[in-house]
Amino acid sequence: MSQPAFEIQRHVEFYETDMAGIVHFSNFFRYMETCEHAFVRSLDHELHGMLDGLETGWPRVNASCDYRAPARFGDLLTIRLHIAEVRTRSVRYRFEIVRDETLIAEGSIAAAHVAITPDGIKAVPLPEPLRQKLLTFRSAVAE
Amino acid sequence: MSQPAFEIQRHVEFYETDMAGIVHFSNFFRYMETCEHAFVRSLDHELHGMLDGLETGWPRVNASCDYRAPARFGDLLTIRLHIAEVRTRSVRYRFEIVRDETLIAEGSIAAAHVAITPDGIKAVPLPEPLRQKLLTFRSAVAE
Amino acid sequence: MSQPAFEIQRHVEFYETDMAGIVHFSNFFRYMETCEHAFVRSLDHELHGMLDGLETGWPRVNASCDYRAPARFGDLLTIRLHIAEVRTRSVRYRFEIVRDETLIAEGSIAAAHVAITPDGIKAVPLPEPLRQKLLTFRSAVAE
Amino acid sequence: MSQPAFEIQRHVEFYETDMAGIVHFSNFFRYMETCEHAFVRSLDHELHGMLDGLETGWPRVNASCDYRAPARFGDLLTIRLHIAEVRTRSVRYRFEIVRDETLIAEGSIAAAHVAITPDGIKAVPLPEPLRQKLLTFRSAVAE
Repeated sequence: MSQPAFEIQRHVEFYETDMAGIVHFSNFFRYMETCEHAFVRSLDHELHGMLDGLETGWPRVNASCDYRAPARFGDLLTIRLHIAEVRTRSVRYRFEIVRDETLIAEGSIAAAHVAITPDGIKAVPLPEPLRQKLLTFRSAVAE
Repeated sequence: MSQPAFEIQRHVEFYETDMAGIVHFSNFFRYMETCEHAFVRSLDHELHGMLDGLETGWPRVNASCDYRAPARFGDLLTIRLHIAEVRTRSVRYRFEIVRDETLIAEGSIAAAHVAITPDGIKAVPLPEPLRQKLLTFRSAVAE
Repeated sequence: MSQPAFEIQRHVEFYETDMAGIVHFSNFFRYMETCEHAFVRSLDHELHGMLDGLETGWPRVNASCDYRAPARFGDLLTIRLHIAEVRTRSVRYRFEIVRDETLIAEGSIAAAHVAITPDGIKAVPLPEPLRQKLLTFRSAVAE
Repeated sequence: MSQPAFEIQRHVEFYETDMAGIVHFSNFFRYMETCEHAFVRSLDHELHGMLDGLETGWPRVNASCDYRAPARFGDLLTIRLHIAEVRTRSVRYRFEIVRDETLIAEGSIAAAHVAITPDGIKAVPLPEPLRQKLLTFRSAVAE
C-alpha cells in the first residue's frame, strides 16, 4: 500500500474476548481509538488542550467497522491509521487491523474538535499547528 | 415514526463514562447489541442454537454509529430497534438511541448467521422460523 | 438473612462474558458499583455533590470479591447490598450476588468521601444527612 | 525489593478512565490479569490446556485491590507480579501497580486450576511442569 500510515501493535487480552471465543466487536473501536491517540501524540500534540480559556476535546461524530475475520486471545494485532479527511472543525481517520497477512477489520472514526463552554459543546477550528501536521502527514508519499 | 420497532430502556452506568464526562462511544455498540438480544428473545428464539449438530452464532459483519448528542451518567436511554434488511444468511438492524425527545445516536449492526465447523466459521441460512418472525415483524404496520 | 439489604436485578450481557463462556471476573465489581449507586439514589442523595464550592466524589479505597459459582449470558442476577461500616470519611458496603438460590459471589467495596481541591484529592466527612440515612438503614431490623 | 518479581508496562487508555477523570477501579483487575497471563507465557506454559481429553482453565476464586493513588489517561504503569502461594489445585499472585516511584495500587488474585467436565467444573492439580516453574520462580532470591 502506498498511502502514508501510522501503526501500533497490541496483543488481544483475555478480557476482550466473549463467549464465542473471539474479540467482542465493540473492542475494535477501542483499538482504533488507542491508535488514534498514539498517532496524535506522535505528532507532538496534546489531545486535550485549551482554547481561549476553554477546555477542548474530540467527541466522535461517526464510527464504523467492517469485520473480515475473527481475532482471538493472544493474537498480535497491527492497527494501521490513515487520514481520510481533514476539515475545518473535524478529522476522519481510516483504519486497518491485521494479524500477519490476514485482514481482521477495516473501520473509520470521525471526530469533531470542540470547546466545552458553559452553554455546552461547540465545534471550533482545529488548532492550526495540528492541522498543518495532519496535512503534511497525509500528503507524504510512501515511494 | 410509523415503522415497527422494539425497544428497551437502560440507565447509563458510571463505568460507561470516560474522562470527558460522557458515555464512551464504544459503549453505544454494546447498548445496541443488548437491544438486539432482547429483541431476538422477544421472538421466542434462542440466539445460540444448533444446526445439524454444529453450534451456530451471529458474528458481526458491520457496525456503525452516528453520534448526535452526548449521554451522561444516570441518563435513562431508550434503545429502539428496526429491521433494516433480512437476507438469506444475514440480518441488518437499525437503531435509534434517545433520551426523552433528544436523539443521542443512530446506528446499525449487520450480523451473519454461521455454523462453527471443524474447518472454521461458515455462513448458513437463517433458521426458517426466525426468518418468518423477522419478516412478520418488519411488515407490521404501526397504524 | 435478617440484615437490612437493598437489592437490584440485572441480566448478564453477552459482552460481559469471556472465552471461558462465563462472566469475566472484573465485571462483578461493576455490578457491585451499579448496586451501590442505585442504593445511594434510593436514599435521595446525589452521588456527586459540592462542599464549600468544591466538587466531591467517592474514590474506592478497597474492593474485593470471592467467586463461588460461574454466571453465564442471560442469567438473571440479584445484587444485594449491606452496609458493613460507616466511618467519618468513608463507608464500606458488603454484597452478595445470587442467581435463584445459588450464591455466585460475595464482595465488598470501601469508598472514601473526598473533595477535589486545586492541590489534589482530600478526604472530607460524609455529608451529615447521608450519614444519618446510612446509619438508619443499617440499624433497621428486618423482623 | 528483594522478592522475585515479573513485570509488564502499559499506558492507561482513554476508554479506561471514568467521569472522575481517573482509571475506573474495575480496570485494575484487568491490568493484573494481563500481567498474570504474560507471566505464565514467560514460563513457556499454555494457559488453556488439556487434561485427559478435557479442557482446563483458571477461574478466579478471589480478587482484591487496595487503591493508593489515582491513575490517569496516558500514565505509564508498571504492573509487578509476585507469587504469594502455590497450592495443589490453585495459585495466588500478589501485584503492585506503580507509576514511577508512586504506588498506585496493590492487589491479589487467586485462581483455581479446573477441568471442564460434562458434569461441570472440577478442581484438578496444577500441571507438574508449571508447578515446578512456579516454585522455582518463587524461591529465586534477587540478591
